[in-house]
Amino acid sequence: MRSTMMDAPLQVSRILDHGATVHGTAEVVTWTGAEPSRMTYAEVGRAAARLAHGLRAECGVTGDERVATFMWNNNEHLVAYFAVPSMGAVLHTLNLRLFPDQVAYIANHAEDRVVLVDTTLIPLLARAIGAMTTVRHVVVVGGGDPAPLVEAAGDRITVHRWDDLLAGRPDTYDWPEVDERDAAALCYTSGTTGNPKGVAYSHRSIYLHTLQVCMPEGFGLRPTDRELAIVPMFHAMSWGLPFAAFLSGASLIMPDRFLQAEPIAAMIAAERPTLAGAVPTIWTDLLAYLDTHEVDISSLQEVIVGGSACPPALMHAFAERYDVQVVHAWGMTEMSPLGSVSRPPRGASGEEAWRYRYTQGRIPAGVQARIVGPAGKELPADGTSVGELEVRGPWVTARYVGDDAPDEEKFRDGWLRTGDVGTLSSDGFITLTDRAKDVIKSGGEWISSVELENALMAHPTVLEACVVGVPDERWDERPLATVVLREGASVTAEELRDFLAASVARWQLPERWAFVEAVPKTSVGKFDKKVVRSRYAEGELTVRVLSAP
Amino acid sequence: MRSTMMDAPLQVSRILDHGATVHGTAEVVTWTGAEPSRMTYAEVGRAAARLAHGLRAECGVTGDERVATFMWNNNEHLVAYFAVPSMGAVLHTLNLRLFPDQVAYIANHAEDRVVLVDTTLIPLLARAIGAMTTVRHVVVVGGGDPAPLVEAAGDRITVHRWDDLLAGRPDTYDWPEVDERDAAALCYTSGTTGNPKGVAYSHRSIYLHTLQVCMPEGFGLRPTDRELAIVPMFHAMSWGLPFAAFLSGASLIMPDRFLQAEPIAAMIAAERPTLAGAVPTIWTDLLAYLDTHEVDISSLQEVIVGGSACPPALMHAFAERYDVQVVHAWGMTEMSPLGSVSRPPRGASGEEAWRYRYTQGRIPAGVQARIVGPAGKELPADGTSVGELEVRGPWVTARYVGDDAPDEEKFRDGWLRTGDVGTLSSDGFITLTDRAKDVIKSGGEWISSVELENALMAHPTVLEACVVGVPDERWDERPLATVVLREGASVTAEELRDFLAASVARWQLPERWAFVEAVPKTSVGKFDKKVVRSRYAEGELTVRVLSAP
Repeated sequence: MRSTMMDAPLQVSRILDHGATVHGTAEVVTWTGAEPSRMTYAEVGRAAARLAHGLRAECGVTGDERVATFMWNNNEHLVAYFAVPSMGAVLHTLNLRLFPDQVAYIANHAEDRVVLVDTTLIPLLARAIGAMTTVRHVVVVGGGDPAPLVEAAGDRITVHRWDDLLAGRPDTYDWPEVDERDAAALCYTSGTTGNPKGVAYSHRSIYLHTLQVCMPEGFGLRPTDRELAIVPMFHAMSWGLPFAAFLSGASLIMPDRFLQAEPIAAMIAAERPTLAGAVPTIWTDLLAYLDTHEVDISSLQEVIVGGSACPPALMHAFAERYDVQVVHAWGMTEMSPLGSVSRPPRGASGEEAWRYRYTQGRIPAGVQARIVGPAGKELPADGTSVGELEVRGPWVTARYVGDDAPDEEKFRDGWLRTGDVGTLSSDGFITLTDRAKDVIKSGGEWISSVELENALMAHPTVLEACVVGVPDERWDERPLATVVLREGASVTAEELRDFLAASVARWQLPERWAFVEAVPKTSVGKFDKKVVRSRYAEGELTVRVLSAP
Repeated sequence: MRSTMMDAPLQVSRILDHGATVHGTAEVVTWTGAEPSRMTYAEVGRAAARLAHGLRAECGVTGDERVATFMWNNNEHLVAYFAVPSMGAVLHTLNLRLFPDQVAYIANHAEDRVVLVDTTLIPLLARAIGAMTTVRHVVVVGGGDPAPLVEAAGDRITVHRWDDLLAGRPDTYDWPEVDERDAAALCYTSGTTGNPKGVAYSHRSIYLHTLQVCMPEGFGLRPTDRELAIVPMFHAMSWGLPFAAFLSGASLIMPDRFLQAEPIAAMIAAERPTLAGAVPTIWTDLLAYLDTHEVDISSLQEVIVGGSACPPALMHAFAERYDVQVVHAWGMTEMSPLGSVSRPPRGASGEEAWRYRYTQGRIPAGVQARIVGPAGKELPADGTSVGELEVRGPWVTARYVGDDAPDEEKFRDGWLRTGDVGTLSSDGFITLTDRAKDVIKSGGEWISSVELENALMAHPTVLEACVVGVPDERWDERPLATVVLREGASVTAEELRDFLAASVARWQLPERWAFVEAVPKTSVGKFDKKVVRSRYAEGELTVRVLSAP
């Protein structure tokens, strides 16, 4: 039996129109180093219409062409976020942090036709644009000299000024009705191995994800909120905050390129956000700054931390010293990105509540999750069975852009393999411990490298411990523990193994031990386990092998 | 460009599974007069699976057959709410308050095959079931004697016991994937004129509506909430609260048939709801009870009032005497039903905030609204232009069940005509004044009967005033004011007209006046304007016609 309901598509232009009318007096504020730049949501709505007219008239954007942004978090980026999908084109947020050749690869793969660029980013774009083969138009936001772009790309591109492109255009646009499953926005993951892979969000997935972001158990956005959106708009759509702000009526505070602790502190003091979202390192830096400077951050009630796990000490410091609740969120570019938010369940308080806050959080109804063990079999959601986390739902990608079929290494039977290993509790809390590639596959069972590291680092002599899986004839893989001792400390491998035995199952205890000067790190400061494994393989480590205790 | 997102349908079984697992320890509590009956959401999930197996095995329910409920708000009704749509069948909530012949008409129109009935409602159903031509199975919840049903319907029906139907069935069910635009539930409006009309909610509309109900600017449901759901499950799906509870993890408290102030007060004291939803009369009665009895209602933070406009005095009384915020919500069966919620906007406080609370509230992104004037032209959303409110969106019906095309009196160009007259502000607040049928169409302009009534009732001599439109040769319609004076008071029509002139535009002032003993009322206590108009037409009123002042 068919329903009698209206067939109203879920589309980005509805979020724009709602925000620009019903919440027309809400504002977006961009930090500039001098006087902040402000627009009301009504003004953003009018600017979005003018941008869409300009893109159509001057850049020939029609149909589902890709319009890229190479921009910081600022007012104009917000206008583009709404204008491009609303007109039926596809927004592609280019990641400023990638190498120029990666940026060019991504722009070519997506077949970007237009790039919007902040004037401060012209030099950076100039290093990539020569290799961008499909781009025909560049729109410069601000007054900087575009000569480096023309020098790099020649007459293949036409350069426009944002202000000129919008000048004199109508401030309304008859946004087309779209198929809600059509692409609205593109984001590429910065895969550490191989080429970056693209995800195409649909109007439907963005709309549904936006509702979830606004929910009380999501970020809980209201018109009285002011959200400091530090997480870049080129990282997984800034966690959906721009869309969520327009749907909920919460105002937005944008840092542009001012991402150091000092300007962030100044923004908080001046613009009085109630909520903020960023990766942990931003909060670590801010905490250190706050502890040595007098800053009024009393407006701030909650900060959402995502991107990587938040150190518990940071959560406690903000709660105890500044009365700010740090809330863990977990997700992936492939998940729009929101997968879970760590709000303690009903009845949990004190230490128990804190334990929930340390987890990756609880899945909403829009995300289904399961744990799959080494043999490819689904394991119980009992909070203890360890396996790879797999997810599915209406805002989870089914494949990567350009792939005809799902990549078997990343998808299984309609589920996304997250590449993360951990547990799922019966009440929907996810706890992640390792990346799947770092877990040690020993005799058909998995050993968590992170658990061994944490246990080792609790020993008073140990400064750092990095555990990797190394090949083993009998068990397939076994753990190798590499240990950096504290200055002047001394301990034997046997002593450390015996120490571990108090908290780790006997079969998980490492036989192979190496004392090293330092653990090699990646550019973002994580242990570089690939390097450790290769040093072991090349025989560059002095390894002691203990016999069974 | 197609998106890469998963094609995951929005369906009721996802809400059920989420609630029954992630929020499996939340509970539904039903008042029984004795010990309350409790089920966890995990138990509801298992019972829903058993009910679905039982309906399939014993009642032959397959495909999209209609399964009706004739039940109070209780645990078993909640189980049916999830089991029937999740198995792919269609839930049809029959309204206990209708006349038996209307109930039978509705059941026949919907082609109901099964009716689930509370044991306490057997006598009431027995008066209707004889005329229900498509019903083949009745499932009795509770131990009452089903003989009256069999007597009325003969061997056309088979009677089952709920407990027997569920006994020994598997407590999981492989819920089918559905087309999200297929019907999940049916509800008929109790049209005061003509036959009731049916609305078929889809899985999609229920899912989207549920998200909106849970939003901070909706009812703001969290796992820590306990929601007292007084609004009947046979009235517009109990405002979506059962689904919202499972999506959000809020617990539910159900009154069954105990809807008087005393048991409601006892439920609040014993079960400590944080939120509650009901029509205004329930709150009026409760307030009177609370003012004369010692009851602890301190758990209650907010009550949602809908169904009809809430008297401001009631809002103030709950806020000032009991620290309970009364929140106005407006909607229609045709809207799933949520159309707007009256939370004051950012920056409003004191008297201004109260004025917002008196409105019907603010539309969410999922509802578009417009005001259409007498000539069928859209009027500005400026908070002053008066016209009929029209709405559209993914949880608004496009037509009635059985109609091939939208009824032109109720729909216009893809919009639902609400039949309500009022204004829409630029920031999305709806203020309704009249039913469209009661508004006075005078010379191409509209005069609000309710505004005239309120202005008249502010006069110290006036107890009640009812204003209706009556035919006029020159102006098409003109207002007739019928006035009931307070005991012993005396005033002339001229004096009242002069009093009105201070607050009402001159062209709106009534010429026709009648002093009457009483205003005729409908069964729910509203002015019966149809009767007033017909008395005027029949010459039964003594009318004075004033000449222009």
